[in-house]
Amino acid sequence: MKPAEVLISEVGPRDGLQSVKATMPTADKLRWIDALVAAGLREIEVGSFVPPKLLPQMADAAEVVRHALTHPGVTIMALVPNLRGAEAALRSGVHKITIPCSASEAHSLANVRKSRQEMVEEVRAIVRLRNDIAPGVKIEAGLSTAFGCTLQGIVSDDDVVWMAEQVVGAGADEAGLSDTTGMANPAQVRRLFHKVRAAIGDKTGAAHMHNTRGLGLANCLAAYDVGVRTFDSSLGGLGGCPYAPGASGNVVTEDLVFMFEAMGIATGVDIDMLIAARAPLQAGLPGEPLYGMTPLAGLPKGWV
Amino acid sequence: MKPAEVLISEVGPRDGLQSVKATMPTADKLRWIDALVAAGLREIEVGSFVPPKLLPQMADAAEVVRHALTHPGVTIMALVPNLRGAEAALRSGVHKITIPCSASEAHSLANVRKSRQEMVEEVRAIVRLRNDIAPGVKIEAGLSTAFGCTLQGIVSDDDVVWMAEQVVGAGADEAGLSDTTGMANPAQVRRLFHKVRAAIGDKTGAAHMHNTRGLGLANCLAAYDVGVRTFDSSLGGLGGCPYAPGASGNVVTEDLVFMFEAMGIATGVDIDMLIAARAPLQAGLPGEPLYGMTPLAGLPKGWV
Repeated sequence: MKPAEVLISEVGPRDGLQSVKATMPTADKLRWIDALVAAGLREIEVGSFVPPKLLPQMADAAEVVRHALTHPGVTIMALVPNLRGAEAALRSGVHKITIPCSASEAHSLANVRKSRQEMVEEVRAIVRLRNDIAPGVKIEAGLSTAFGCTLQGIVSDDDVVWMAEQVVGAGADEAGLSDTTGMANPAQVRRLFHKVRAAIGDKTGAAHMHNTRGLGLANCLAAYDVGVRTFDSSLGGLGGCPYAPGASGNVVTEDLVFMFEAMGIATGVDIDMLIAARAPLQAGLPGEPLYGMTPLAGLPKGWV
Repeated sequence: MKPAEVLISEVGPRDGLQSVKATMPTADKLRWIDALVAAGLREIEVGSFVPPKLLPQMADAAEVVRHALTHPGVTIMALVPNLRGAEAALRSGVHKITIPCSASEAHSLANVRKSRQEMVEEVRAIVRLRNDIAPGVKIEAGLSTAFGCTLQGIVSDDDVVWMAEQVVGAGADEAGLSDTTGMANPAQVRRLFHKVRAAIGDKTGAAHMHNTRGLGLANCLAAYDVGVRTFDSSLGGLGGCPYAPGASGNVVTEDLVFMFEAMGIATGVDIDMLIAARAPLQAGLPGEPLYGMTPLAGLPKGWV
């Protein structure tokens, strides 16, 4: 197998499970994560460190991390919204944490009850803690609503670039761009990644695209075209029917991997085993709708 | 409204209706076409001229064309598989005919029971007839299975270029590339349109992409990137669940128009009216599943 040329960062066990009503039993989560690893995924966001009262789906985050860490060579990530969550995550042994930092002030206040400037200070405090207790752990700031906001509408490029500079200035190792609301388009993706890279260079992180209006893969292609090499996605497109049934949230890992592999861009992921990983996901969330076209159509004749 | 920079060629009333089992009553077809025109579509493939025994859904093609022609400024197209169909189409008054010409020999024999060379001769005969009885009508050859074939597997670029040269040599005004089987990927789309344009120049026609494995819009973006400006698509993604329910065939017009408009590329199409055109489609095909994410999600906040 060719060495991977892009990194597919699977966010289903966090972003996906956090967005559905049902809580997946821990044993099913572990089986699902094992299947994702077996398919060749090398970075998995396995949980959120948040109060169980707010997100009971994530109450077992430390246990899930502990199991996930038994897989050598896989980067285990967790989301943390604040310093308290960061401390729990860092003590759990994760390799990387991701902090949601809204580019939209309105979304920041609604999502984490902090202004953007306060969130930058939170990043700074988390970096300090990381330096003290777990210096090997990477810190990513995920710039939410980078492409538009359902509360304030348009988010200016300048606001996104400013926020990228702020979080990197506060010590984050990288800043990714998240299309939280499914408002991105390919021209904007190219333009904004260019601008962010001009500002923070190789600290520019992943493209986290949604498929809300069907543009998820086109936006990933656009990001690839301008040099992005890490892409967040979710098996079965789990996570977020923010508007209506059928309007899936996250980009579907199966279709994303198919796109890159078909283009001759190695992902390190085996599509058949990736599709097989839908079974433990579905077993843990009976009746939950899964998305993705490649699993329905199968691989084309002549595929090698 | 900015003048259109891309042409969205709506194929639902032909490609879509031909692929579903139910037959839409003629009156519903006409209402649907009126709604498509009202939304701003300027090219519509309204039917196939084929024996009604083979495709009863298309038995009213001449009547549908007659009505469609009452809309000034709209290019009315029909598909014809052979000389006999072409004669009926040309006498119906259409502005443009499209002839499916497979790049794959296996598909050609299965689809039209002719070899590719025999199909080239059919194009030549149709061109001759057109010159005699309807010299103003444009003739497009749609190169089916240009990106792969479910029968023979891989279709070589050379075969596609050869077929493009043959049909243009036989007098076709343009040759488009069709991803009949949903096997195209963006790298291949860019490469193949480059090669075909190098061979036949500005006789290179539309990109007809399918969404079978979710790559429809990414492939349209790739085609746009290399200069393609005409895109076939189908309202509600109607047409072709060639593999399984949910695995839609044609690119969804609503999502395609949203992508271009969001990128600032004018289509001339009003998205709200386009979404409204789903109502007469659904009324004429009760219970038929429609696809498309933009109609579910709606337009983003701040959209102008």
